[in-house]
Amino acid sequence: MRTRFYNCRILSMQESMDVQQGEVWVDGRHISYVGAKKASDLPFDRDIDVQGNLIMPGFKNAHTHSSMTFLRSYADDLPLQEWLNDKVFPLEAKLTGEDMYHLAKVAILEYLTSGITCNFDMYLDSYQVAKASVDCGFRTVLVGAVNDFGQSPEELETCFQKLNAYHPLIRFCLGFHGEYTNSRQRLEQVAALAEKYKAPVYSHNSETKAEVAQCIERYGKTPTAFLDELGMFRYGGGGYHCVHFNQEDMEIFHKRGLYVVTNPGSNAKLASGIAPITRMMEMGIPIALGTDGPASNNCLDMFREMFLTTALAKLREEDAAAVDAQEVLRMAVCHGAHAMGLPECDCLTTGKLADLIIVDLHQPNMQPLNHIPKNLVYSGSKQNIKLTMVDGEILYEDGKFFVGEDPEAIYARANEITRRIQEGR
Amino acid sequence: MRTRFYNCRILSMQESMDVQQGEVWVDGRHISYVGAKKASDLPFDRDIDVQGNLIMPGFKNAHTHSSMTFLRSYADDLPLQEWLNDKVFPLEAKLTGEDMYHLAKVAILEYLTSGITCNFDMYLDSYQVAKASVDCGFRTVLVGAVNDFGQSPEELETCFQKLNAYHPLIRFCLGFHGEYTNSRQRLEQVAALAEKYKAPVYSHNSETKAEVAQCIERYGKTPTAFLDELGMFRYGGGGYHCVHFNQEDMEIFHKRGLYVVTNPGSNAKLASGIAPITRMMEMGIPIALGTDGPASNNCLDMFREMFLTTALAKLREEDAAAVDAQEVLRMAVCHGAHAMGLPECDCLTTGKLADLIIVDLHQPNMQPLNHIPKNLVYSGSKQNIKLTMVDGEILYEDGKFFVGEDPEAIYARANEITRRIQEGR
Repeated sequence: MRTRFYNCRILSMQESMDVQQGEVWVDGRHISYVGAKKASDLPFDRDIDVQGNLIMPGFKNAHTHSSMTFLRSYADDLPLQEWLNDKVFPLEAKLTGEDMYHLAKVAILEYLTSGITCNFDMYLDSYQVAKASVDCGFRTVLVGAVNDFGQSPEELETCFQKLNAYHPLIRFCLGFHGEYTNSRQRLEQVAALAEKYKAPVYSHNSETKAEVAQCIERYGKTPTAFLDELGMFRYGGGGYHCVHFNQEDMEIFHKRGLYVVTNPGSNAKLASGIAPITRMMEMGIPIALGTDGPASNNCLDMFREMFLTTALAKLREEDAAAVDAQEVLRMAVCHGAHAMGLPECDCLTTGKLADLIIVDLHQPNMQPLNHIPKNLVYSGSKQNIKLTMVDGEILYEDGKFFVGEDPEAIYARANEITRRIQEGR
Repeated sequence: MRTRFYNCRILSMQESMDVQQGEVWVDGRHISYVGAKKASDLPFDRDIDVQGNLIMPGFKNAHTHSSMTFLRSYADDLPLQEWLNDKVFPLEAKLTGEDMYHLAKVAILEYLTSGITCNFDMYLDSYQVAKASVDCGFRTVLVGAVNDFGQSPEELETCFQKLNAYHPLIRFCLGFHGEYTNSRQRLEQVAALAEKYKAPVYSHNSETKAEVAQCIERYGKTPTAFLDELGMFRYGGGGYHCVHFNQEDMEIFHKRGLYVVTNPGSNAKLASGIAPITRMMEMGIPIALGTDGPASNNCLDMFREMFLTTALAKLREEDAAAVDAQEVLRMAVCHGAHAMGLPECDCLTTGKLADLIIVDLHQPNMQPLNHIPKNLVYSGSKQNIKLTMVDGEILYEDGKFFVGEDPEAIYARANEITRRIQEGR
């Protein structure tokens, strides 16, 4: 399949944030040309007039739990512990693997509407989420969720081997749920796997004040310092949330080249706090953005996360100049790809994988045309996503989905599962 | 014109937040029936199958400066004073009245995409904004902007008389820019007009820490206490922003029945702070929501403001249960109408004005269907707005605008004006 996008404004995000006029060609799974209008020797299967709209690399949702759609807006406005213990955990216990497959598809549809071309997903059954993703043509990097009540280090290793050989759209990273849900022994076993495979490791880290305080009580150290001491980060990796970080935590992240994946929507809704993004940036720590799961956000929208990343930093620092919007766009697009081990998806240049989006500039929220990259962060919305292409295939265009199944069937199944679980069956 | 909406989920917002199945009829400017499916004696001009989507009253944008679209994403990520003095004021000085007319139309288009059916607008030339609104078929309540460098109390009185007799879509309220931009004498003149017309008065109030500190230095009182002492609020009114309020300010607002119009997007982006919404609600102060202008937000999206209203309160109070999402929906829909003196637009019941919207539930961010009203606040997006009707006329439907002018012409004009002003012509 050869696709030509012409009449484009191009934001390649390779180096500068300059917007160029021209064309983008896609050949199979890859971008084959980005530049000025020119003639092609070979015909295209499809020529798309982009009508002066913006073509750019897709957003990377660097932390989520896709299958949690069944809990979206089921139990909001509750204190965190009550929400988790009385609402989330008892209902999750009723999920089957097949449920997780169908529920993940609802999230994938939403990612497409928000210009998200891949997700970094942690959940109970990675195989089912991977299958949903492949069946939709979507790209997913799964991450282990080792914890004392669920996935074991042995199961993690099996996932790592199987899912990294499963499909070109799928990768799997070593990971565990969090320091607070694992015994020291389990964490040592995960660190041993990191050493064995020379692989990066990811986990929830310092999301709440209480989590950090309890770790200090247990081990006399913050989660980051404790995990680093176990040798967890010898080959890189990162942390989800990283809200309650002190200077030493940031120094460890910087020294080890770890990624902070910030989740401002979830951290606000669950009253967890505001991550010290400004300081992290000053130290050169790479930051990626994630929506977290649909039970805690509740929407899966990178436009919301981009605005919140800079807006909450401005509030935290009491400085309207904190965290330039262009840096936020780079987090959502490029750093996300790097955090997920997908350097071939980080920008729109020849040879990269064709994970790209078209942003409708013919909408009032994009007008007049002043600073387009900053306007994406401050004013962009799902409504502006005209097309989402993953791995060279168009999965979403002008409000229609091309994911191998009718969205109405996906919604119907998700509603059935949700009712069944809520009714305790 | 008689319109019948059938196959609806109805959120009337009259009392409860229950969602009913049924039909909504519109006869001319008013809602003529809301209830179960039934036969009509008279034929309809149009029968619209709502396909199980949600019909509800429109959102009210209770504080904005529509014509500032030319400054959207022109100068972001700057400290507040530098932004105002070096970017906003010098460029505003070049605006003509006709510019303001055309620029306001860009904002009106955006309001329609976000399900906003009226706005509470303060700007340099209320006549031009009113004309843009009427020409589009949109509803606008204008508010005076008396200050030492612009509108005089005499001009305010003329506006009040002329614009309240101008058109059924237009109202005008007494108002001034802020305590910090007016001499005591000017404020006393505004208070005298409030007394003369027994009318409510609105203004910016306690947006920044510095504004409050300077007022205390000048008069030994907070802006609210000082203005109240001048007799400004004898017939009600309200304040925009109200971020830095103390207990006495809130007691005055409560005693006088004043509305707080909160602008969380702008207050975050400009690092002004988080308003104490939780405490205001406990005291029974009615709260409405506004986007503020497109230079300070930068988008004009009530979904963003709704999410931020509860999310920032949760962060401020460190309590995930703070400010229930249903209360936020009531602010955006009902309290906004009351703050603007439009009780006939507050809910979807027989006899009210037909200012209503259809929300697309057949989108992944609305699925599965758990708690629909809360999901609007936590997960809703412009992408969900299928139809916006103002005063019985459909102005936006399935992505198309019906405002008497081609949106592309409106964008082209706005870009011309913006370039001219930036080039200093």
